Amino acid sequence: MNKALHNLLQNNLQDLAAQEGLDPEQITSGIQDGSMVLLGNPAHSECLPTLVGQPARLKVNANIGTSPFLQDPELELAKLRTAEQAGTHTVMDLSTGGDLEAIRKRMLQETSLPLGTVPIYSVAQKYILNQEDPARMSVSELMEEVSRQAEQGVDFMTLHCGVTRRAVALAREGNRRLGVVSRGGSLLARWMEANDAENPLLTEFDTLLSICGDYNVVLSLGDGLRPGAGEDAGDAAQWEEVIVLGQLAGRARTNGVQAMIEGPGHVPLHLIQSQIQGMKSICNNAPLYVLGPLPTDIAAGYDHIAGTVGATLAAYYGADFLCYLTPAEHLTLPNENDVWQGVKASLIAAHSAEISLGRKEALERNQRVTQARSELDWSAIAAECLDPRLVQKRREGFASREECAMCGEFCAVKLFS
Amino acid sequence: MNKALHNLLQNNLQDLAAQEGLDPEQITSGIQDGSMVLLGNPAHSECLPTLVGQPARLKVNANIGTSPFLQDPELELAKLRTAEQAGTHTVMDLSTGGDLEAIRKRMLQETSLPLGTVPIYSVAQKYILNQEDPARMSVSELMEEVSRQAEQGVDFMTLHCGVTRRAVALAREGNRRLGVVSRGGSLLARWMEANDAENPLLTEFDTLLSICGDYNVVLSLGDGLRPGAGEDAGDAAQWEEVIVLGQLAGRARTNGVQAMIEGPGHVPLHLIQSQIQGMKSICNNAPLYVLGPLPTDIAAGYDHIAGTVGATLAAYYGADFLCYLTPAEHLTLPNENDVWQGVKASLIAAHSAEISLGRKEALERNQRVTQARSELDWSAIAAECLDPRLVQKRREGFASREECAMCGEFCAVKLFS
Repeated sequence: MNKALHNLLQNNLQDLAAQEGLDPEQITSGIQDGSMVLLGNPAHSECLPTLVGQPARLKVNANIGTSPFLQDPELELAKLRTAEQAGTHTVMDLSTGGDLEAIRKRMLQETSLPLGTVPIYSVAQKYILNQEDPARMSVSELMEEVSRQAEQGVDFMTLHCGVTRRAVALAREGNRRLGVVSRGGSLLARWMEANDAENPLLTEFDTLLSICGDYNVVLSLGDGLRPGAGEDAGDAAQWEEVIVLGQLAGRARTNGVQAMIEGPGHVPLHLIQSQIQGMKSICNNAPLYVLGPLPTDIAAGYDHIAGTVGATLAAYYGADFLCYLTPAEHLTLPNENDVWQGVKASLIAAHSAEISLGRKEALERNQRVTQARSELDWSAIAAECLDPRLVQKRREGFASREECAMCGEFCAVKLFS
Repeated sequence: MNKALHNLLQNNLQDLAAQEGLDPEQITSGIQDGSMVLLGNPAHSECLPTLVGQPARLKVNANIGTSPFLQDPELELAKLRTAEQAGTHTVMDLSTGGDLEAIRKRMLQETSLPLGTVPIYSVAQKYILNQEDPARMSVSELMEEVSRQAEQGVDFMTLHCGVTRRAVALAREGNRRLGVVSRGGSLLARWMEANDAENPLLTEFDTLLSICGDYNVVLSLGDGLRPGAGEDAGDAAQWEEVIVLGQLAGRARTNGVQAMIEGPGHVPLHLIQSQIQGMKSICNNAPLYVLGPLPTDIAAGYDHIAGTVGATLAAYYGADFLCYLTPAEHLTLPNENDVWQGVKASLIAAHSAEISLGRKEALERNQRVTQARSELDWSAIAAECLDPRLVQKRREGFASREECAMCGEFCAVKLFS
């Protein structure tokens, strides 16, 4: 356990135990055995220490940030506030357009939620915007960027350390329908092929550990080879990467650095259980951070819904941390409404999974809503639901009535009492 | 097989086989053994014959109709058109406010999709709006209403024949959190207790069979005791009703009348498989028509999302027919946007399940989207996605660019090629 983590844990253990409904010993041992991570970089002032890893409560992440086509820092700050209000537990700044450092620093100032980044974006941006090949980036530039962001207070970083030459070769040989759909993964694959060299995030892994250990930056070991189509799910390239990530998570743990594993991607429904359990098992139960998974490829515009199906199952089978998908996925940057919808959809997945996992707090919340329904107590229903203001809004014009406007006097609760 | 069904099948078997990608013999034997039903009342002019029952393609139903608080027939017709445009396969008119007969007749004129109803609503309305107890309705009134609607062309009817005295007693004894949440179920439970008599839809089941046989009205045997809270799922009352419904489906089959079974409801994720498989098994594989199921009770305002989680799993485990839930569920009548969202969400469930069930057409559609993505061919992506216009709309302002506005020049597809 690195010193920053040790201090963070010592100062917050009792509060965390109370929040999570866990014994302090469960948390300490979960962090020690690597099945939980505690997010919080001491350089991120007033960061809310956040525990990820079941049986801690499922956590939700919202991705925000500019793109080369859409770079409005104020909009991104508005999205940050929206994500917070909707109930996200963490935020990732995935900006790739504009003054990335200024945006990141501003977000770190503005939010007390743990903030994640993908440092390779900042390095690649310099090349891409100059119309140079990002394969020209140097290893030292990458390490410097990681170090700079750690100093700035970034709490977790996606690092695609498992995109090895062997894994990329497997992806090429395996006739994937969509080769690489991760931005970081594709940048590294391109770099390796152009430079005839191994992934620098792997060869310099000890340097990464040293930097991250100093600031308790949690490694989010990225799935650069996640399937981008249902048909690609579960191929050799994907599992090769998982094996490497599992080994790296072990090395991190030995060196007192926390790590979690990122997961797929596009995965048909019937493969979600084996994917999640396989990843957890190969990675010695390191926290699993999933994007979706998406059980269909045709839902662009509604991917937050398709993703909720996958995320609910994934969480039930062991995933710990749910990265939202918004209605904008595959199409454009999310706007504020997309952010809101994405967070709420992920919270549905989290709550549904927690119900079936028998988590006390989730069960009690269900019970409170049900009790309020049996009494037609609309203010209590609204208060316990996912979006109290929306419940109230949908009842506008009928709020003085005891029944809802769907059934009116045909209210079953009233007819059978 | 009743005569109307015999004619319908004979006239449409080749087309149905082509549409469904099935052998004609599969369809004929599916209908004969009761695992499929063919919707289409000869009195509903130009009704599109629609096959329900796997391995036929999953079908989606959209509920529309007025309520006592919200009765605008024109709005309901607009919702009908919206549901059709969104891709629903059937529609149910659940109107309980205004001139129910006029609304129903107009809908039957306006749509060629099979139309379903809940006849007890029309009978109960007369009492409820006069502030009389609907328990005063007579058995003959009920039978006359079923007969009238069959003559008018209604293609399927929800009849809660399994809400027996024994089942209601089990619900009362079992300490359900929410006793009866079905409008039809609560009306019948109230009627039985007030009249100290058995469910008239059960005692007069032979009359129902005779009426429905004349017009090939498909019985949709309603789940009046479906759980209205996750905690209530799977109690004795629920299964008692399923047992009765299974027996009644058998009686219907013997008498040449088609029947399907309605399913839950609020069901935690981990119980969906056993619920669906149990219902299919008890009911001798009659088509299962599900509402949700909802794996969480807290998602009012977003129940179309929570319902998609349940519906996807339900369909994968054997449900055949998905009744949509909209964002208005539990709160108010759906508006046009709600209808659109509800249908699209259900289509996500249907497609996701069909992928995992290995259905050829679904797999090929996924492949076409993926191929289009690998070529960044946006018009093909839009065409194959669930909502082509939405895909185009989200790309407005950037449609001239090859990449999407989410990644811009960071496009993984372009970086790794």
